[in-house]
Amino acid sequence: MEHPLLETVNDPADLRKLTKDQLPALAGELRDFIIDIVSTKEGHLGASLGVVELTIALHYIFNTPADQLVWDVGHQAYGHKILTGRRDVFHTNRQLNGLSGFPRRSESRYDTFGVGHSSTSISAALGMAMASNLKGETEKHHIAVIGDASIASGMAFEALNHAGVSKANLLIVLNDNAIGIDPSVGALKEYLTNVKKDRQLAKNNIIKALNFDYSGPIDGHSLPKLLKELERLKKKKGPKFLHIITTKGKGLKKAEEDQVKYHAPGKFDKHTGALIVQPNKEEPPKYQDVFGATIMELAEQNKKIVGITPAMPTGSSLKYMMKKFPDRAFDVGIAEQHAVTLAAGMATQGLLPFCNIYSTFLQRAYDQVIHDVALQKLPVIFCLDRAGLVGQDGATHHGAFDLAYLRCIPNIIIFAPRNEIELRNIMYTAQLGLDFPIAIRYPRGRGITLDWKKPFEEIEIGTGVELKKGKDIAVVTIGNMAQNASEAINNSMGKERIAHFDLRFLAPMDENLLHYIFSTYKKIVTVEDGSIKGGMGSALCEFAVKHRYKNKIKILGIPEQFIEQGSVEELQFAVGIHPKSIAVQLNKFL
Amino acid sequence: MEHPLLETVNDPADLRKLTKDQLPALAGELRDFIIDIVSTKEGHLGASLGVVELTIALHYIFNTPADQLVWDVGHQAYGHKILTGRRDVFHTNRQLNGLSGFPRRSESRYDTFGVGHSSTSISAALGMAMASNLKGETEKHHIAVIGDASIASGMAFEALNHAGVSKANLLIVLNDNAIGIDPSVGALKEYLTNVKKDRQLAKNNIIKALNFDYSGPIDGHSLPKLLKELERLKKKKGPKFLHIITTKGKGLKKAEEDQVKYHAPGKFDKHTGALIVQPNKEEPPKYQDVFGATIMELAEQNKKIVGITPAMPTGSSLKYMMKKFPDRAFDVGIAEQHAVTLAAGMATQGLLPFCNIYSTFLQRAYDQVIHDVALQKLPVIFCLDRAGLVGQDGATHHGAFDLAYLRCIPNIIIFAPRNEIELRNIMYTAQLGLDFPIAIRYPRGRGITLDWKKPFEEIEIGTGVELKKGKDIAVVTIGNMAQNASEAINNSMGKERIAHFDLRFLAPMDENLLHYIFSTYKKIVTVEDGSIKGGMGSALCEFAVKHRYKNKIKILGIPEQFIEQGSVEELQFAVGIHPKSIAVQLNKFL
Repeated sequence: MEHPLLETVNDPADLRKLTKDQLPALAGELRDFIIDIVSTKEGHLGASLGVVELTIALHYIFNTPADQLVWDVGHQAYGHKILTGRRDVFHTNRQLNGLSGFPRRSESRYDTFGVGHSSTSISAALGMAMASNLKGETEKHHIAVIGDASIASGMAFEALNHAGVSKANLLIVLNDNAIGIDPSVGALKEYLTNVKKDRQLAKNNIIKALNFDYSGPIDGHSLPKLLKELERLKKKKGPKFLHIITTKGKGLKKAEEDQVKYHAPGKFDKHTGALIVQPNKEEPPKYQDVFGATIMELAEQNKKIVGITPAMPTGSSLKYMMKKFPDRAFDVGIAEQHAVTLAAGMATQGLLPFCNIYSTFLQRAYDQVIHDVALQKLPVIFCLDRAGLVGQDGATHHGAFDLAYLRCIPNIIIFAPRNEIELRNIMYTAQLGLDFPIAIRYPRGRGITLDWKKPFEEIEIGTGVELKKGKDIAVVTIGNMAQNASEAINNSMGKERIAHFDLRFLAPMDENLLHYIFSTYKKIVTVEDGSIKGGMGSALCEFAVKHRYKNKIKILGIPEQFIEQGSVEELQFAVGIHPKSIAVQLNKFL
Repeated sequence: MEHPLLETVNDPADLRKLTKDQLPALAGELRDFIIDIVSTKEGHLGASLGVVELTIALHYIFNTPADQLVWDVGHQAYGHKILTGRRDVFHTNRQLNGLSGFPRRSESRYDTFGVGHSSTSISAALGMAMASNLKGETEKHHIAVIGDASIASGMAFEALNHAGVSKANLLIVLNDNAIGIDPSVGALKEYLTNVKKDRQLAKNNIIKALNFDYSGPIDGHSLPKLLKELERLKKKKGPKFLHIITTKGKGLKKAEEDQVKYHAPGKFDKHTGALIVQPNKEEPPKYQDVFGATIMELAEQNKKIVGITPAMPTGSSLKYMMKKFPDRAFDVGIAEQHAVTLAAGMATQGLLPFCNIYSTFLQRAYDQVIHDVALQKLPVIFCLDRAGLVGQDGATHHGAFDLAYLRCIPNIIIFAPRNEIELRNIMYTAQLGLDFPIAIRYPRGRGITLDWKKPFEEIEIGTGVELKKGKDIAVVTIGNMAQNASEAINNSMGKERIAHFDLRFLAPMDENLLHYIFSTYKKIVTVEDGSIKGGMGSALCEFAVKHRYKNKIKILGIPEQFIEQGSVEELQFAVGIHPKSIAVQLNKFL
């Protein structure tokens, strides 16, 4: 496929040399280019296709990078990356040592703010705009592009509330496609839908009430309309808000038709859009699907069970329960804070809320976990998906900190299953009724067990297990690291000398088991898919010091740095928790 | 003072036996009772005085506790406590083993949800209402009372956005007094002000846009109006929103006139309202005032410095800079998430933002610290006031977790000053330009140094100090615990055997100093005003294990439980970090 216009654009300055008439053709080429690469290299598709025209129009009208553009979330910024000097390396997107899947300051001066989690763009762009005011840079423009799912998150509202009374030269572009990863929800979404239908409502709207110069809604796929409106807005000072309507997946029929699947579709045929299905080999399930199936099974029996997800019905697989029990499973939108305290409110009434949040996104509700759940000892059941290294989404998305940030909170049980069966059994156990909240953290991707739908068995809270006996070395793991350690041990020359324990519970810890381990084995290796600082290894150090054990301890986990993107295996290798890396450490100890 | 009506009300059922005509007199008595107690026992005053009529009206019209009432923040709930069976023990408010200063589930069945941090009430009440729907309790009412400062926080917006599309039987009462602790700010506040003036605007407003049955604004001090409107709303199903206008401090002239000072005025004359001023003895300054004075001094010299507070201009003492440099110091409202990412945006432009947030409230912006600041290594200077045990505000407000939850984050420098001079010097050092963010945590209340305005000295990042030499025991402290440890050492029989080090930096740690300590002293006692799990002591355990030191280590700090209210001294004694408690541990070690 040829891209004659696109190939002339190595920089937005080149783009600005084109005539307005050439831009629709450029949009076609850019769309082709994105589809071409993503069809084989994978990544986020629909969001970037939806903002092709907007991306071109923004860089055409505004003087980037002097004018500053912040993309909310950033998975829609592929076109932006391609137009800002990264076309030739775009095929490395999301790969180890390649481009990040999200804007990053270290990657380009056009990436003014690193993103990944939603709803940060208005705050960041407002900060830049206020800095420009202070520095007397009165001609500088600051633009935040945010979707309708992201703008409904509380943080975005906080920023709107501040921006509306600032004198900042800030333009917010609301990219309204009525969908995040899953369809948008909430009262604001309904309101925006009404605004599109009723011009009168648009005149008297929420955004105007917050002091913005509101314009729109306009067709976000019409370059002439976008250019005209952006030119007009460029001349206005103060906080401005442009509402545009786009179609996620625009330009690829199948992506427009199934916007959820084509958010990040994996490999597909670039001409037809048809997904390239893997040969039907039998594989262990994804952990998320074990969660999704198990909560349904439990909810059938236990009427107290409810499910909550902040905007991840598909990603968490809560969607199955939402379909079957629509009164008992809720998508609350990108609203982690609300999700947690809503769960707490429900728990006060005797319900058993399973609150499913990705590990990295629970960071958004840390205070609510402490203040609303743990302090009141409410039995909320947190299911933390995508814990540990998540792969290609990279530094913003790894669930690296949960073990450390949860461990210091009193009253909360912390569990990580080593396989699908343990996940099922702890979910079963939790809904039998605990007097405490529990956090169950499990990884992205597939487990290891084909035959995972076993009858439920209760797990005794606070107990670890011995997986293998040994002589002088004990490996202590938590969660899916049990599997990595098992492989390492099995491939070790001194395998019979090495014992293996799965701690399972980081809190409460199995102190009896730990006393046994520390008094039986001279050397201890701990392995966790989380931050070394403050995590399980750290807890064992505290235990050893407290009880005056002198064992040699080696702690493996995620070191004190942010980990970039790559395959999970590559990253495990890089940080030293891959089976081969563990084996190296074991051999050193042997 | 006599309270003939109030004395008949031991329970809201008693209240409901009174005639409507008696209620204004009851309101007068309740107001007197609150003033009477708070004038000598101290506590929050203005907020509770402002909702006397609302409190009576809610308990009169609704069938509490079957109908469920959630107070946002909860410092306005004194009247609620007094009317719900706690009149006779109300004089123990905020004291050790007394009543909590906030609603607490463990204290009364009328306290349906524990509060303290703002903006949780709508989520919690919605959770209760949704639970009632599921349980078929269709007649049950659920009420959240929230102020205009709290409703502007993102979490409240998330809950409104969800509630608006729910079928929940939820009443939100907006108690609009145009002030939080300090006057409210932001576009929503301006909008609400306009609504009060313009009835037409009220018909077409933001809350209605979010699907609520909006009514008001009405006079929140008129019992007849409140009763009538609540009776009407009681008959309506679904999400409802009542906007009432009140005056903070209502009924005490001085409190109405100076609402900021009378938020929590200390002791005062119950008749005149005049504050009871302590005899003018010379005292060391409050840490917050050292911050407030120092940032002004630095900002004079360094034009890059800006200051940010989420709704705590008075509490943080940023108000002085806001007055002197109104273009460079900002109150962004109760919006910790926005505050942090706004600071990050400013830092990308070369500004040096001092972002002052109470330790316990930074929990609200944990993700933003990780994702927007630390990951991008932006040199935001966090000043965490009220770190450690804060005293009478109790379990919801102690800054117990910051050392632990920050320590696992890469790239962030963590420092705690042992006195006022160190606070000044680290602020000076930070604005010289670091390549990393820094968190400076310091306690509530006064320091120890009268002559604190010394010339600035740069502090070398990552260095601890030896405060005293010894023979075989080393005490390692961080922050204000240096003072407690010094006292303990000085009063110890074996004082010459005990060395004392101030680590100062939890990250990066002074490893050279630690090697010196571990190789010189057999026994080590660590003292910190923070969670034992994951904190400084834990870091020293990791260090000891990593480097194979066998020293005996005793870790003193906040144990794994939520700590209730009391004086700081009482609480330090209870958890074992009081000078006397430290002395006991030292004697054991001697």
